[in-house]
Amino acid sequence: MAFAHKHLLGIEGLSRSDILYVLDQARAFKEILRRPIKKVPTLRGKSVVNLFFEASTRTRSSFEIAAKVLSADSLNWTASGSSVSKGETLLDTAKNLEAMRPDLLIIRHQASGAPHLVARHVRCSVINAGDGAHEHPSQALLDAFTLRERLGELDGRTIAIVGDIANSRVARSNLLCLAALGARVRLCGPPTMIPLGAEQYGCSVHHRLADAVADADAVMMLRIQSERMQDPLFPGPREYARTWGLNRDSVNLLKPDALVLHPGPINRGVELAPEVADGPRSVILEQVENGVAVRMALLYLFCGSPEANG
Amino acid sequence: MAFAHKHLLGIEGLSRSDILYVLDQARAFKEILRRPIKKVPTLRGKSVVNLFFEASTRTRSSFEIAAKVLSADSLNWTASGSSVSKGETLLDTAKNLEAMRPDLLIIRHQASGAPHLVARHVRCSVINAGDGAHEHPSQALLDAFTLRERLGELDGRTIAIVGDIANSRVARSNLLCLAALGARVRLCGPPTMIPLGAEQYGCSVHHRLADAVADADAVMMLRIQSERMQDPLFPGPREYARTWGLNRDSVNLLKPDALVLHPGPINRGVELAPEVADGPRSVILEQVENGVAVRMALLYLFCGSPEANG
Amino acid sequence: MAFAHKHLLGIEGLSRSDILYVLDQARAFKEILRRPIKKVPTLRGKSVVNLFFEASTRTRSSFEIAAKVLSADSLNWTASGSSVSKGETLLDTAKNLEAMRPDLLIIRHQASGAPHLVARHVRCSVINAGDGAHEHPSQALLDAFTLRERLGELDGRTIAIVGDIANSRVARSNLLCLAALGARVRLCGPPTMIPLGAEQYGCSVHHRLADAVADADAVMMLRIQSERMQDPLFPGPREYARTWGLNRDSVNLLKPDALVLHPGPINRGVELAPEVADGPRSVILEQVENGVAVRMALLYLFCGSPEANG
Repeated sequence: MAFAHKHLLGIEGLSRSDILYVLDQARAFKEILRRPIKKVPTLRGKSVVNLFFEASTRTRSSFEIAAKVLSADSLNWTASGSSVSKGETLLDTAKNLEAMRPDLLIIRHQASGAPHLVARHVRCSVINAGDGAHEHPSQALLDAFTLRERLGELDGRTIAIVGDIANSRVARSNLLCLAALGARVRLCGPPTMIPLGAEQYGCSVHHRLADAVADADAVMMLRIQSERMQDPLFPGPREYARTWGLNRDSVNLLKPDALVLHPGPINRGVELAPEVADGPRSVILEQVENGVAVRMALLYLFCGSPEANG
Repeated sequence: MAFAHKHLLGIEGLSRSDILYVLDQARAFKEILRRPIKKVPTLRGKSVVNLFFEASTRTRSSFEIAAKVLSADSLNWTASGSSVSKGETLLDTAKNLEAMRPDLLIIRHQASGAPHLVARHVRCSVINAGDGAHEHPSQALLDAFTLRERLGELDGRTIAIVGDIANSRVARSNLLCLAALGARVRLCGPPTMIPLGAEQYGCSVHHRLADAVADADAVMMLRIQSERMQDPLFPGPREYARTWGLNRDSVNLLKPDALVLHPGPINRGVELAPEVADGPRSVILEQVENGVAVRMALLYLFCGSPEANG
Repeated sequence: MAFAHKHLLGIEGLSRSDILYVLDQARAFKEILRRPIKKVPTLRGKSVVNLFFEASTRTRSSFEIAAKVLSADSLNWTASGSSVSKGETLLDTAKNLEAMRPDLLIIRHQASGAPHLVARHVRCSVINAGDGAHEHPSQALLDAFTLRERLGELDGRTIAIVGDIANSRVARSNLLCLAALGARVRLCGPPTMIPLGAEQYGCSVHHRLADAVADADAVMMLRIQSERMQDPLFPGPREYARTWGLNRDSVNLLKPDALVLHPGPINRGVELAPEVADGPRSVILEQVENGVAVRMALLYLFCGSPEANG
């Protein structure tokens, strides 16, 4: 039973029961996070390395806080000013860090598949904290946790994901995760931002926001990356906001009790108007809090539980 | 009774007894800092986020050491490489961090009022670690602690503050703090660096160093910011040093037992000659040590004491 | 008896028995590092500042992990974004940090002698983590630990050091350390990279790789710094690799059981071909693990043991 994976490289490869196992564990950890004394000795003497080749204070901080609450030691290793900037290869960096005997490497890298490559060459566990446009599994898990806490089980629920689907690891991991949990997923965005053949993953594809969000139980708005906004194929932030953003008007296309999610950081005025980001449907800050709880569960599963292979 | 503030946004708003309460607490914490084993479990399970939008290893390290001695967890969040560089707003950043459930946010920001804005929107406590040219209350408290340790109560004492008063949050917080403690404050600097109407705060304004420091019990020399030195209105470092700096000659204008303070980092040869910075009147390194003690007291008051509203 | 030094500024000044004392201590600490729960309370309440003026995630991480395993607090202080970038002097920075009451300063600086200057002006202990082209004693100690673990006592053993000897603090510290332990050292590299008069240190100098490595028990390959590769006096990476690098062919000049060491990060294809870096003679990752153990021993000696003068 339980959780028989050595690494978390993606949602791909996780079963419905694997996912539910993590989400159920996270529920107990969220309770710890709300105590006045947010500290348990669960992972005392365990050590975690945050190996981030892309800047991400947000995700790194979430993992770092999760480690601290569980009394694990965490080391931040960033590419700038390090041996990477001196030309060291990814594998040399990872094997060097592994030689310092951590229990877990948490890796973010701009290249799809980088954490998988590392996982094949080290003995400790690896968590993918985002690889290129491929996967970002802890984000999908925290999104599922948030949806489940609000909506109950997701079987038969309808979730719309809106934005730059083709370039989004958040979209890809969420698509896999929501499908495994029995939800119906609708993808929506400018035609240039939807990958060809997306329907093969069991989702529907829409180019009009109204079609995607009608009757949806929740809408995940993706962040438009700033580099994307300079792309000549990109419609421009103002047109994007008008056509695919949620603003004072378009938010009325949603059901009254539909949830609005966003992985952050928000481009206010582009994919989300301030009224919507801060409005009653938004669960964006719950996502952040739940992210710490889900990452506590992951740290526990990968380096603390009796079933950990660390 | 005692200390009934949820945030420390400035010296403005603190009463004389508030200030004395912090300073008295800090005295006990300084004793801990001098033990061979500098660790007490007081804030175990409490967490502090250092949210620094301006680089400041010095102030951040002081807060970080204070947290470690008290067994609190601290997370460093810097603007570079973070979601701020991706265009996130101050409030979104702060609310995201708050969602991770810290007990305290310590904020430095280039804009006056930034910590106040944050404090109105988060549930946890906020300490202002420097906002624009507005306030830097923990610096004023550590300066007062240092003066009081050397001089006893400050009622009726004369303190000169010399330098770029108009652009200095250190000067502003000190002026308010020293006035609350009953000291007489003299401001001194080039006319372009003294704000119009400074006298309304109950201090005297002087343009000749000799007038400001004569009979003063202590002289606080402000740092001339390097950006200031390129300002066409600035007299130039050499002339500044000769006219408003403390050097081998001008230091003789001070009383023999007058104290010399500086918030650091020092521009040696500009506002302070090395002989004065390292001389017998200098209490600059005591200020640094006392800074840790005062920040321990603040962390305790804002997230550890029974009266904390965290 | 034992270890009567207040600082570790270089291998110069250490006796054979000093070195053996550190290496023997490190053996016990390596055992801790391999436990499932890698945490002992030995240095609880002690604090260490990593004061790095040159970027080095690798060495800093090794010291940081060593501190965490021993339950010491460590503070990272880097030059960028700090008061150094605001023009503060080395001594002012060090004295400011010392005023915050750490037990130990670990310093890396681009100028030879910088840690020595600091050590003369502070009360706490100082470890040199690399100063210019001068010394890097903890690297030499971890190299000696690795050699001794594999070869037993080093008396009469032959060790070749190959590369840019003249600009290498690693070579210099190793030369002193290996000589103190009774090993015979051979230096090898392009003539422009061997300092004149190197023989006075009791080593032999070779310009052909074959002469240097024949019958050697171990070969230390130095990293060619990227700035060096642009130097007009440098033969160019391809010629360097062919003449002084260890590759599929030249590795056959070594004894079958000779060890290959490298301080990292490796320039794959320049000083070491991948087949050699990852081959059976390579002990490069053992060096990394042993580095943590040796640094645990150093932290213990300089701030934790009854004989510490901290």
